[in-house]
Amino acid sequence: MNHTIQTQLAHRTIRRWQDREVPEEWVAQLLAVGQRAPSSTGMQCSSIIRITDAALKEKLAELSGQAYTVAPVLMVLVLDMYRNGEIAREKGEVFTGASDYYSFQQAMLDVGIMAQNMVVAAESLGLGTVYFGSLVMKAKALAELLHLPERTLPVVGLGIGFPAVEPQLKPRLPLASQVFDNEYRREDSYLKALAEYDAVMQEYYDTRDMNRRVDSFTTQVARRYGGATLPAGQELFSLVTEQGFTWVENGKEQ
Amino acid sequence: MNHTIQTQLAHRTIRRWQDREVPEEWVAQLLAVGQRAPSSTGMQCSSIIRITDAALKEKLAELSGQAYTVAPVLMVLVLDMYRNGEIAREKGEVFTGASDYYSFQQAMLDVGIMAQNMVVAAESLGLGTVYFGSLVMKAKALAELLHLPERTLPVVGLGIGFPAVEPQLKPRLPLASQVFDNEYRREDSYLKALAEYDAVMQEYYDTRDMNRRVDSFTTQVARRYGGATLPAGQELFSLVTEQGFTWVENGKEQ
Repeated sequence: MNHTIQTQLAHRTIRRWQDREVPEEWVAQLLAVGQRAPSSTGMQCSSIIRITDAALKEKLAELSGQAYTVAPVLMVLVLDMYRNGEIAREKGEVFTGASDYYSFQQAMLDVGIMAQNMVVAAESLGLGTVYFGSLVMKAKALAELLHLPERTLPVVGLGIGFPAVEPQLKPRLPLASQVFDNEYRREDSYLKALAEYDAVMQEYYDTRDMNRRVDSFTTQVARRYGGATLPAGQELFSLVTEQGFTWVENGKEQ
Repeated sequence: MNHTIQTQLAHRTIRRWQDREVPEEWVAQLLAVGQRAPSSTGMQCSSIIRITDAALKEKLAELSGQAYTVAPVLMVLVLDMYRNGEIAREKGEVFTGASDYYSFQQAMLDVGIMAQNMVVAAESLGLGTVYFGSLVMKAKALAELLHLPERTLPVVGLGIGFPAVEPQLKPRLPLASQVFDNEYRREDSYLKALAEYDAVMQEYYDTRDMNRRVDSFTTQVARRYGGATLPAGQELFSLVTEQGFTWVENGKEQ
């Protein structure tokens, strides 16, 4: 097994940092790797906002509710159709990208692809990484802080630094429950199919609190998705609309 | 610069394959890397459908309209809330994940993250890769072929094999137009800001047809997004709704 794959298989999320800067030369490499990531039809519908201002980092940590957001390197990854919209306008075209759901999905995917390219590169350098999904739970405040224009959307934060901890590997779903041949395979009972995985997960010590074991996977799922929809999701979807993304279905009027 | 980053910076999309199988041991490594990718709150809202059936591969190539979809290794990556929805149901909870846009966005991001983890691993082994966004332009036919249940969505195809070509590196946006410090930076004129990039792009020979130069970036953008919305996007968004994903905005009735 080669070194890249070994590093990838050793991935764990890092939530505590050494008090040590990441060399700027490395940051430059990470950004180059982010830019080099593939994007749908080469349209590069993503942007990176690097947060270097200490006060702004603190504000973002308040938004996410997670103190470790103040990472040595902190970026916010943005789905970006502003740039291409302006290009089309300058070229005298009517930009229809923002009303096309296919383009939106591809752009969202581009952001994930770019993000993970940087994560793998960072880990290959011995750095630790963490995604901050929680940052976009206060989506409107975040968009305002970063002066995001129309046709853009904050997607996820990414923290990078020298790790101060070496957490356990977090157990993953059994392959047979996530990887299928030729067609989707449903289980008659997921609780039965995942019973062994549930047991393994309960032996795992979460990196958030290393002295506390975690619930079984299926219990985590039931808690995460049971009950009322999060207001955060409603706010984020409001922002999607406000930023100009509105999609039409087949056979429906706009 | 380490080997992982060198490989990432040498990324090009591959659209011609050697007549040579990828060793199953390598495929197993790629799938393990896919599963090991980080996911939002560990919910693992993604699945992989590997297409091994030759007739099915041909059908997918018809859907995408690209003959090189018949890659030695072909996967379709799926946003998957079916599994977690069933888990919640078996646990006696009402699953609200499908009506929460935040959860949807995180799941979409998970798919991109998982996909790119596999792409980096494949390229570290000397394999070539290609994403098939076009596969989901016939989203309903694809969902039917793969027997996708409710609360799932086909997102992108991924082809992997030994490359039969070594294309040029495709030029990327200047860093200053895609990476910003602390806030989004708009250009007064993108045509001016990207003039040099446009010139470089016109020197590049596209991998789709290596005997033909391509248009400038801004011309490509204007063509890609100018004019009417693609029917494919309407069909894909119809499928999103049909599969059970409906989101509420702040202050709006469901």
